[in-house]
Amino acid sequence: VRSTERERSDLSERARPRLSNFARRLFAEWERLSLPVRDERVVCGVSGGADSVALLLAVDELRKAGRLALGVTVAHLDHGLRGAAGEADAVWVRELARESGCECVVARADVGERAAASADNLEQAARRARYKFLGSTARACGARFVLVAHTMDDQAETVLLRLMRGSGGAGLGGMKTMRVLEENVVAQVEDVAFDEAGSAAAMPSFDSSSHPLMLARPLLRWARRVETEDYCAARQVDFRNDAMNADERFARVRVRHQLLPLMASFNPRIVEALARTSSLLRDEASALEVVAGELLKAASAEVENVDERTLDGETNNLPALRVDVLLDAPVALRRLALRRWIERGRGGLRRLELAHLEAVENLLAGERGGRTIQLPGGASVVRKRGLLYFKPY
Amino acid sequence: VRSTERERSDLSERARPRLSNFARRLFAEWERLSLPVRDERVVCGVSGGADSVALLLAVDELRKAGRLALGVTVAHLDHGLRGAAGEADAVWVRELARESGCECVVARADVGERAAASADNLEQAARRARYKFLGSTARACGARFVLVAHTMDDQAETVLLRLMRGSGGAGLGGMKTMRVLEENVVAQVEDVAFDEAGSAAAMPSFDSSSHPLMLARPLLRWARRVETEDYCAARQVDFRNDAMNADERFARVRVRHQLLPLMASFNPRIVEALARTSSLLRDEASALEVVAGELLKAASAEVENVDERTLDGETNNLPALRVDVLLDAPVALRRLALRRWIERGRGGLRRLELAHLEAVENLLAGERGGRTIQLPGGASVVRKRGLLYFKPY
Repeated sequence: VRSTERERSDLSERARPRLSNFARRLFAEWERLSLPVRDERVVCGVSGGADSVALLLAVDELRKAGRLALGVTVAHLDHGLRGAAGEADAVWVRELARESGCECVVARADVGERAAASADNLEQAARRARYKFLGSTARACGARFVLVAHTMDDQAETVLLRLMRGSGGAGLGGMKTMRVLEENVVAQVEDVAFDEAGSAAAMPSFDSSSHPLMLARPLLRWARRVETEDYCAARQVDFRNDAMNADERFARVRVRHQLLPLMASFNPRIVEALARTSSLLRDEASALEVVAGELLKAASAEVENVDERTLDGETNNLPALRVDVLLDAPVALRRLALRRWIERGRGGLRRLELAHLEAVENLLAGERGGRTIQLPGGASVVRKRGLLYFKPY
Repeated sequence: VRSTERERSDLSERARPRLSNFARRLFAEWERLSLPVRDERVVCGVSGGADSVALLLAVDELRKAGRLALGVTVAHLDHGLRGAAGEADAVWVRELARESGCECVVARADVGERAAASADNLEQAARRARYKFLGSTARACGARFVLVAHTMDDQAETVLLRLMRGSGGAGLGGMKTMRVLEENVVAQVEDVAFDEAGSAAAMPSFDSSSHPLMLARPLLRWARRVETEDYCAARQVDFRNDAMNADERFARVRVRHQLLPLMASFNPRIVEALARTSSLLRDEASALEVVAGELLKAASAEVENVDERTLDGETNNLPALRVDVLLDAPVALRRLALRRWIERGRGGLRRLELAHLEAVENLLAGERGGRTIQLPGGASVVRKRGLLYFKPY
């Protein structure tokens, strides 16, 4: 029976066009991530570098092999930092998209100006502008997923950059293979004209208000950067070299060109080791989030006395927390639970520093009855009779 | 009132000999770790390097200032790797101990021979021999605590070495400030002669069978290596330089001399950043251990059917685990709980590889009823009717 089964599977394999190893591995990860395989449109961020060109080519290969029946919108942002070179890249990506039979959206941002106007450095401002552009492109064409081509090498660099800043476990987990890019997206499918296979008519328009827009990184877990270059070469497609990738004023470039090679002299498989570490830490961080959520629930107090409840700020439906329950929990859980509680109360962690969180933690340890910790932006945390209250004003 | 209080505290400060900053910080950590301050003996591991000399000198300063009233036994192991240089270090440490009014125990091990006879490399064999010696010295003199002088720099090196091997969160937590060195120690206080202040007569002999022997690292959280050198210089005491600390065949030496300096070009406070990361990860790892223990308890099944119970191995009182409860838990918790369960069943994790753990995890995911995973050493894990059984043979 076994050999018959194998033959049958060989036959069905032979009936299909033979997939490259790269496309096969992409498809395995595609299924693992439960990415859509038919009847909708995805956005693919393409800078023109080997990573994103390989992603686009492999998606194209999977479409031609009949594994994917998706509309693809190539999205390219010219960050406005490299003048004519940036414009040439945009022209090049538009041509590549045309050859792959994909719709293409190109935009230009003045990232230098944005960085100057904000507290961001150039890399942060570029990232912010890029994800904003990818999100609005997805909204415009009714896509639920944006794909970006970060590799295992990018992950290793991210882990090292965060390590050198002293991150905890959540930060060292690095980039996620899948995350929410924007909550509660409202798609406007009807405004978009599709110009290639998988036309708008064939695509259901999702009730996107119930689908957050997701960012997926289908190369992150398995592809080395050199493999994306090799795959481009095998497909006889060139890619663009961004001069900024060689500019050693950028920390990431120095990690790539100096730090990782030195670490490879300790462990030749350093990139895989860092990727493995980050994956373990992501699992651990998400377990801690789950358990911290349970702790918050367990510590939430029913406040019956009306006078007490006004302390809670009335407009604010955040529960008061029982100090005794928090003190019983391991310190890392207590810290994370307080972080999430304050985040909910303030609508974010903006301008909140470790010192503020530590001050709130110290509120718990003290024997004294009533004390208040001021948070930036006017909110405060008050300890009174064994309970912790969040005051939004 | 305030100024009076301050004056009074200044006065009481003035009445005591003025402590160096180094000794003051050591004492703060000493109290934080709840290390004993009087009426017992501690063992202090002294190699003769700046770190351990500084620790011994600061303990001596605290004794002279009346902050500590402890007997101190200096323990020095000559690893037998450096011939006459090693012997000269031993003589030097013995003299330093004598000048500090401490008892001194010196021993010699042939670490090279031990490493050749085992699968250990030289560093592992040296560490093993050293801790064994420190433990037996503590037992011999009735101490509950062994102090070693690892600094924040050692911690940063440990974190990087483990990172480059692809460790998860528990490994990246690095060294602990306090850990059990040996369980259930039986002290033999009566066999030991004390030759300095804090004589045996003044020390209660602990019922040490109820006290595990602890290893403490009171410099780990706050002291930089250069601060130990500066403190030795301020005390006008020399220290020994171990030639092996400059031997770049050792990975740790290359981390110290090549990797950390390169990382300092990204963040001048890299050692502090790595120490901070490791401390956060230790907190997270110990929270996960607590919660994984709770998960094991929640997943433990009462097996009523006697036939089923025999599957459990009879001699083995490890509970069967409910597959549904395990599957409901976040993957990192499930993994850790299974690890601890198998560790208890086998009496250790020896020869157990990640692949074995993954195979057990996969037992859970499968829909099939009965399946068995063989573990190295003859034990196995069996899935049957929604339960996981550990079979020790």
